[in-house]
Amino acid sequence: MTKTGIEVVKIGGYLINEPKGLTSFLDAFVANDHPKVLIHGGGRLATEIAQKLDIPIEMVEGRRITDSATLQVAVMAYAGWANKEIVAKLQARGSNAIGLSGADGDVIRAHKRLNSPIDFGWVGDIDEVNDELLLFFIERNIVPVICAITHDGKGQLLNTNADTIAAQVALSLAKHKAVHLAYCFEYDGVVRSLSTPKNVIAHLTEDEFMQMKAVGTIHAGMIPKLSNGFAAAKGGCTVRVCGVANLWSRQNSTLLCP
Amino acid sequence: MTKTGIEVVKIGGYLINEPKGLTSFLDAFVANDHPKVLIHGGGRLATEIAQKLDIPIEMVEGRRITDSATLQVAVMAYAGWANKEIVAKLQARGSNAIGLSGADGDVIRAHKRLNSPIDFGWVGDIDEVNDELLLFFIERNIVPVICAITHDGKGQLLNTNADTIAAQVALSLAKHKAVHLAYCFEYDGVVRSLSTPKNVIAHLTEDEFMQMKAVGTIHAGMIPKLSNGFAAAKGGCTVRVCGVANLWSRQNSTLLCP
Repeated sequence: MTKTGIEVVKIGGYLINEPKGLTSFLDAFVANDHPKVLIHGGGRLATEIAQKLDIPIEMVEGRRITDSATLQVAVMAYAGWANKEIVAKLQARGSNAIGLSGADGDVIRAHKRLNSPIDFGWVGDIDEVNDELLLFFIERNIVPVICAITHDGKGQLLNTNADTIAAQVALSLAKHKAVHLAYCFEYDGVVRSLSTPKNVIAHLTEDEFMQMKAVGTIHAGMIPKLSNGFAAAKGGCTVRVCGVANLWSRQNSTLLCP
Repeated sequence: MTKTGIEVVKIGGYLINEPKGLTSFLDAFVANDHPKVLIHGGGRLATEIAQKLDIPIEMVEGRRITDSATLQVAVMAYAGWANKEIVAKLQARGSNAIGLSGADGDVIRAHKRLNSPIDFGWVGDIDEVNDELLLFFIERNIVPVICAITHDGKGQLLNTNADTIAAQVALSLAKHKAVHLAYCFEYDGVVRSLSTPKNVIAHLTEDEFMQMKAVGTIHAGMIPKLSNGFAAAKGGCTVRVCGVANLWSRQNSTLLCP
């Protein structure tokens, strides 16, 4: 596998609340000195804070409805605590990082998702990634650390799926350089059964994914990750699903093959 | 007064919770197309959230003690909500802004304040401002929007006085360009008495400030603002205390004269 190009890594928010897991990930992340971009969610932290603040969590079809109070919590948790903790810890590892929401430098412009059939509230669908500013940082060895908040250019912040951000950022950078996108999560790759988590699918084609989805043998939470992953793969990025242990070794992970 | 140079403006956190006040300020802020830097606190928002989360607020000598829970709230409120709201609203006004904590791009490095005589907790005293990165943004018409959070380079975020950040940022930029620093707050300038708020002192010397401090005729909350302001003025910056209405008119505000 080629060693050049830009590494775009997406991690789940679950790592933010697990100091040991975050430490392992960040140690692994900085061990590769290629140009890098990090994208993170922050779901569980936002959920915890929303509970403490007595903000009801409304879910429709597995997705959180983002009302104004929920958006404020998401911005605080993702763009505030999670993002700055990661950036400070990367700085401590000698990696010059800069934390960004989509509003910062107009890095990711989105629009509020259409109200029909469901009004998801302040949820954004991405229109445009500012690849020029990202490239500027990357070329100066500054690691963009992007959280799951975008904006609409009219003053509205929007909660945006981090898996989608990762794919769109990867696609926008692929116009300029080879891009390797890694969805880093709790398992070493896509598994056929959670009871055999080490039994990772080495290569997954989109057709196989569609079949697995149709027969319901794939975990619901994996679907947006894989759908976005295949979109990036079809756009020319190398896309893998992996864990912290095989982040750079690229062994025993799942390569998505369009 | 010269029209060239960089405008560094500091606003209090109180504006964040006052939509009308924030709108007026941001409209005024973008009306001047000179290179600009914005520094903001976020005190009242953090206080509100800490109260809702039942985090006790411990104050010593008018200063908040920042334990770990309070730091998390401060990072969420300042670097999260306040910072991103301001950035998104500047984007909506056609001003390309980028939100920064001190950790982002290693923009402001600090150290934890010494424990003696009081342990203030996770409070930072500034060591260094990364003026090169700030200048890069400024030269590309990107407005740095800096919140009152710094880092120590070892992975620790630190709550840091926004008035001090404003002065230190102004001083670091003054090595390269003429800098005009404005402390923008509830009044049009320094007033002798809150009962006559329109009776603004036009020019305040450091000697007069010292005398006012000695006899107790100056509000306690003004002291850090003015101390920091005089430090910047002595370092060659033009420094004013003003309100939103006279942000750029420079009329009826207080010019600090070292």
